[in-house]
Amino acid sequence: MFDVEKAIADFIRFPSVSTDSRSREGMAGAREHIAGIFRSMGLETRLIETPLHPLVLARREGPEEWPHVVIYGHYDVQPADPLELWTTPPFEPVVRDGRLYGRGAADNKGPMMVHIAAAARLLEKHPDAPIRLTFLIEGEEEIGSPSFAGVLERHAAELTGDFVLLSDTMSPSPERIAITTGLRGIVCLDVEVEGPKSDLHSGIFGGAVANPVAVLARLCASLHDDNGRVNVPGFYDDVVLPEDWERESLKALAFDEAAFAADLGVPALPRAGGWSPAEATRFQPTLEFNGIGGGYQGEGSKTIIPSRAMAKISCRLVAEQDPARIEAALRKALRDRCPDTVRLKLSPGHSGPPYRVVPPDRPDTPADQNPRLAAGFRAAEAGVADVFGSPPLYLREGGSVPIIGDIKRVLGMDSLMIGMFTPADNLHAPDESVDLRMLQRGSAVSERILAAVAGVA
Amino acid sequence: MFDVEKAIADFIRFPSVSTDSRSREGMAGAREHIAGIFRSMGLETRLIETPLHPLVLARREGPEEWPHVVIYGHYDVQPADPLELWTTPPFEPVVRDGRLYGRGAADNKGPMMVHIAAAARLLEKHPDAPIRLTFLIEGEEEIGSPSFAGVLERHAAELTGDFVLLSDTMSPSPERIAITTGLRGIVCLDVEVEGPKSDLHSGIFGGAVANPVAVLARLCASLHDDNGRVNVPGFYDDVVLPEDWERESLKALAFDEAAFAADLGVPALPRAGGWSPAEATRFQPTLEFNGIGGGYQGEGSKTIIPSRAMAKISCRLVAEQDPARIEAALRKALRDRCPDTVRLKLSPGHSGPPYRVVPPDRPDTPADQNPRLAAGFRAAEAGVADVFGSPPLYLREGGSVPIIGDIKRVLGMDSLMIGMFTPADNLHAPDESVDLRMLQRGSAVSERILAAVAGVA
Repeated sequence: MFDVEKAIADFIRFPSVSTDSRSREGMAGAREHIAGIFRSMGLETRLIETPLHPLVLARREGPEEWPHVVIYGHYDVQPADPLELWTTPPFEPVVRDGRLYGRGAADNKGPMMVHIAAAARLLEKHPDAPIRLTFLIEGEEEIGSPSFAGVLERHAAELTGDFVLLSDTMSPSPERIAITTGLRGIVCLDVEVEGPKSDLHSGIFGGAVANPVAVLARLCASLHDDNGRVNVPGFYDDVVLPEDWERESLKALAFDEAAFAADLGVPALPRAGGWSPAEATRFQPTLEFNGIGGGYQGEGSKTIIPSRAMAKISCRLVAEQDPARIEAALRKALRDRCPDTVRLKLSPGHSGPPYRVVPPDRPDTPADQNPRLAAGFRAAEAGVADVFGSPPLYLREGGSVPIIGDIKRVLGMDSLMIGMFTPADNLHAPDESVDLRMLQRGSAVSERILAAVAGVA
Repeated sequence: MFDVEKAIADFIRFPSVSTDSRSREGMAGAREHIAGIFRSMGLETRLIETPLHPLVLARREGPEEWPHVVIYGHYDVQPADPLELWTTPPFEPVVRDGRLYGRGAADNKGPMMVHIAAAARLLEKHPDAPIRLTFLIEGEEEIGSPSFAGVLERHAAELTGDFVLLSDTMSPSPERIAITTGLRGIVCLDVEVEGPKSDLHSGIFGGAVANPVAVLARLCASLHDDNGRVNVPGFYDDVVLPEDWERESLKALAFDEAAFAADLGVPALPRAGGWSPAEATRFQPTLEFNGIGGGYQGEGSKTIIPSRAMAKISCRLVAEQDPARIEAALRKALRDRCPDTVRLKLSPGHSGPPYRVVPPDRPDTPADQNPRLAAGFRAAEAGVADVFGSPPLYLREGGSVPIIGDIKRVLGMDSLMIGMFTPADNLHAPDESVDLRMLQRGSAVSERILAAVAGVA
């Protein structure tokens, strides 16, 4: 019998930080771990090389007429710093109060294992189940999946199935499960302001020379208006406002703003542009500063005009914003607003399109929706209702899984996304953790989806 | 014979970074080095304890009616980081092309040694010269001299003389010497914006929660207007505009803006408020950001909403701005402008008042000016003209030596300040250095000043 908890814990022990060039060994270990699991399930398993981190591909083949479900996950994780804020070390998994702690527990090592375990059980019970399965586990999700679209293109024949099943999205709580119907896209841009060739004495030169931190602060401040809306010409042009059924589903969420604010430790919420927090993250694009730096940040004082300053910007996009168009608009706004007293350097980071899928039986469901996708959606709804005790919410999600848009664009497949982490799980932050009971129940739902699509339910 | 170059080089070897708690040993070494020199000159030498770094006090006493010159210097230096930008290590002095390189070479270990050597020579030639000398060498200048005013108050009787002689100000070049008639004051304030209790995933939470970096950028940007003037109510209220003779003296400086910009490596100069660079640093106050930081500043991307962000602000003040009043105005502006979605923490740093002195024979020279100060000024003017080949410029200076204001306030003494570093010397920056020939000639001028005041010229 597949021990899900042990498989996840052993997985977490590999520090597979894809953005950190020192994590080569952890990346390789995580790959070997997941490939070993697939081999023990009897699947044909191999690596697909990329310029950075190979993907793990595992397949259960069968006749063309069998349904074909592609299960996606990623074995890479976010950096663990600041390390001193972790209660226990990030790569030493530990269970406290039914929760598994460690970097990647919730994003994505725990949730991806839900579907692997489900498939293992299904194949144990029904060794001859008429279903093709493809597991595609990548190692570059946290750096924007730069190799993924190319892999899809080169391996289109074997990777194209009826739909993608995955869990890399959020549910409101371990008891209330969401099926995700939209994801935000992303555009990243690094901004650097260069002034004098070295730091200058702020007394001798102060007043005569532009301060790069001051210029950068003005540039950053200019990117929002007084209501918190993004102040970049054209930014909102292509935003599609939510459908009525989406607004209704969101109302069912019963979002408690006061508890939300208290949980995050913030004194008040901004309600930028008049949107509630639950609406803002799902239906609206953002422009965030992920980091800023320049000059002296240490103890005491150092009275300098810093030589340079930098900020890391990322925008989350909603349907139908185009990442390339948004990046161009942002670059133009920054160039137009930058004074001639400094040099401005703009360096793009990763990007990905937003995505939307409409479940079956909605007014705007496409007439040509794949019936096996529809069957998967219906099995998921019934399964969640039975196993968790209440039906799933259909929600757009604030996060980005850029590969979902790539899969749609390159292979034409839609995705069935079952939320297997929650707001309490500290994704991308210290003390990341996941609720183990939710994962066990989610795995039972996944098994029902696969069984329904295979026709062995 | 006193070997000035060796005395300075040996002095630089002690990493006496007063702001860095790891520099205890370097501070003690620098103190011992300078105290050893005073003892070898036959001066009564002792330490004055403070809560942080003791002062070195050395005295040549004499009858009350003898003139009494107080010579000031500081043995502490700025931090040396970023270390990788130094051509040779900061605490390993080396001479290249007639310049001595090392942290403190120009600020203040080289220039202070000018006067020590001058006194040593004078006393060698005139062992019975009727002059009292007090050397007061502090170790907290680079952190704002927090103990200095208290020392002045407790030791007022022995520290009160006719005037202070020092070199901790700038000259235009090693050939063109400035006598400084004004110094800017300073006020430091650290700003911290606290948002969510930990970093948040910018997809899941982006749009719902205020971003501390965005709030900080808006706060910082609000502190200047579009013309680069400080936008804090009341900031300019007490600024005294320059006298005609000051504007005339500044014209003699023949400031080359294009060369200045090229030397600093900036594409253009801001001319904030319409002031030229030379005017702005001397006659106008500033508000500078010495550093800013928050969120992820490393390689690659980390798509977070940072938990917090900080900025280090310092204002340079001109006569007659009051540091306490300016700090209060700045605090109020920041509090008034900070949204309720974050917590704002303001922590004051060091501060010091601006200072002005008028040389003899000017329309606004005080009628009751100390005649020994006037004699010192006149000997300095003649000495600079003879030794350097052209008379000194009388200039206000952009930097701050807060203790000069303290000395005036507590002991009523004015200061005669001979510029012994230049714009090329990289103060507070990597590759700090000083022109050795300028120091040798400056020491000859200093000897003439002391001889004139002693009446042995």
